[in-house]
Amino acid sequence: VTQALLVSTKPATMAVWREELLALDPTLDIRLFPETGPVEDIAAAVTWNHPPEDLYRYPNLRLLISMGAGVDHLFRPPGPPPGVAVVRLVDRLLTTAMSEYVMLAVLRHHRQDAGYRALQAAGVWEELPAPDTEATRIGIMGLGNLGADAARKLAALDFRVAGWSRTARALPGIETFAGEKGLLPFLARTDILVCLLPLTPATEGIINARTLAALPRGAYVINAARGGHVVEDDLLAALESGHVAGATLDVFRTEPLPEGHRFWTHPKVILTPHAASITIPRSVAPQVVDNLARLREGRPLANVVDVTVGY
Amino acid sequence: VTQALLVSTKPATMAVWREELLALDPTLDIRLFPETGPVEDIAAAVTWNHPPEDLYRYPNLRLLISMGAGVDHLFRPPGPPPGVAVVRLVDRLLTTAMSEYVMLAVLRHHRQDAGYRALQAAGVWEELPAPDTEATRIGIMGLGNLGADAARKLAALDFRVAGWSRTARALPGIETFAGEKGLLPFLARTDILVCLLPLTPATEGIINARTLAALPRGAYVINAARGGHVVEDDLLAALESGHVAGATLDVFRTEPLPEGHRFWTHPKVILTPHAASITIPRSVAPQVVDNLARLREGRPLANVVDVTVGY
Repeated sequence: VTQALLVSTKPATMAVWREELLALDPTLDIRLFPETGPVEDIAAAVTWNHPPEDLYRYPNLRLLISMGAGVDHLFRPPGPPPGVAVVRLVDRLLTTAMSEYVMLAVLRHHRQDAGYRALQAAGVWEELPAPDTEATRIGIMGLGNLGADAARKLAALDFRVAGWSRTARALPGIETFAGEKGLLPFLARTDILVCLLPLTPATEGIINARTLAALPRGAYVINAARGGHVVEDDLLAALESGHVAGATLDVFRTEPLPEGHRFWTHPKVILTPHAASITIPRSVAPQVVDNLARLREGRPLANVVDVTVGY
Repeated sequence: VTQALLVSTKPATMAVWREELLALDPTLDIRLFPETGPVEDIAAAVTWNHPPEDLYRYPNLRLLISMGAGVDHLFRPPGPPPGVAVVRLVDRLLTTAMSEYVMLAVLRHHRQDAGYRALQAAGVWEELPAPDTEATRIGIMGLGNLGADAARKLAALDFRVAGWSRTARALPGIETFAGEKGLLPFLARTDILVCLLPLTPATEGIINARTLAALPRGAYVINAARGGHVVEDDLLAALESGHVAGATLDVFRTEPLPEGHRFWTHPKVILTPHAASITIPRSVAPQVVDNLARLREGRPLANVVDVTVGY
């Protein structure tokens, strides 16, 4: 039987994926969407933002590999076909890049960069009050690979770091909160909120009027997870009222962020175009090839997603 | 005999120092400059930017304590009176704040922040090429407390970190270079240069046309040490030619930076008003009180400066 791998993402990126995968295993039978060949050939697929319903066309599909750390794109209706295993990428470069993004946003806010940029622009030599790092409470939502790495690196800088996750997690040196019961206490002790959650029905819209109100006045918000985590009008209202001092946002409800959206020109919003952490095919190709071998040989897959909860 | 402590800095700061020192040792006899009382009373002085020649007026002065990590202000001509011991502050908060400053400057450059700020201002959704952290070579000049801490924290983010110092030093996981012989090889492998050197006759003007030319084209310069380390016209010329891509500067030859100085409005210069790391009297008062007790009791002083080399 033919065991082909379907690759689907932007055309330019697909060519790079094919090259990197073949460099590791020249025997792979790779099909670049939409040139699938006979639908019966496809045994596995590595995709990003692929139309979910299309995956129901391949009767022998057994494994779905997300091209990123997030898998929410695979769970859009109708979701992955029943019986198909789903795996994510876990990659040191993805993690490193995400923690860099978070640390830049945290340090920029903590070190009063907006104030110092305005002083330079005005030609004014004036020292602002020194921030107190040990008194600055960072709260990280999501304690998977990304959240745990950011928490560890920020704690190493002497910030007071806590984490929140849906189910309880323990991290050395980090105070952790869990579940609905832990959410408001976690927010009440958080000066800088960092969202690195998976996007699931349980976390959709989790940054909203109610949760923002639970933060102390003057808190700062960083979202590098998914646009669906934030109720954008609620965040804008909290920025307007001054309850939230500012936000750094990499992801949005609609991407590209539409022309004229208020985030583009909001003086308290720093935004980037979903660029916090970008998958580098060369870095992740070995784990894709490894999971294909595991599938062929009937060994347990690595980095498996629980399809009942979507992460 | 009276053993008084002279305190000299800005008037508002002197009052804070007196309060914090007396909270730890109410028996201290503290004199705030210029209210010294009889010059014979003064046995020790804790100062910042005090006129060096004034210290020759106190015949019983035996200990000079810098109010910061740097001691160059004590070595301006005529330098400390002969036979007077000099000590610096070594403080976790000073070190933490300096590493924050350096990391913010490094990450801002590394993550193409100027490019992303310009894209947001123009309302353009466009991903820039992802930077390669493991290929980005950071070079730290000065491997004392401050340089070693910044090196360690940047290495923990997976940057390729090397250090240079006047005399050879070993740091776990960090490639080190030393002396005049090691300087050009160190610069040739450095994409982001961070200056955290002490200012001495041997390091004055060390960032100049010759050393900037030794950096690879497109290198970035961060100076958070002393203005005297940089030949400002040479740095401006390297920025103009494009050999140096940009600079983050906290310190300057003349402070406050004079009105009309080109750094104020240079599009490739980010500047702050000598605010990278500010001494917090409450945090450092214990080590001052401790050194005064050591002096009284004839025990060895802590954090002693070698007056023959000035650091």
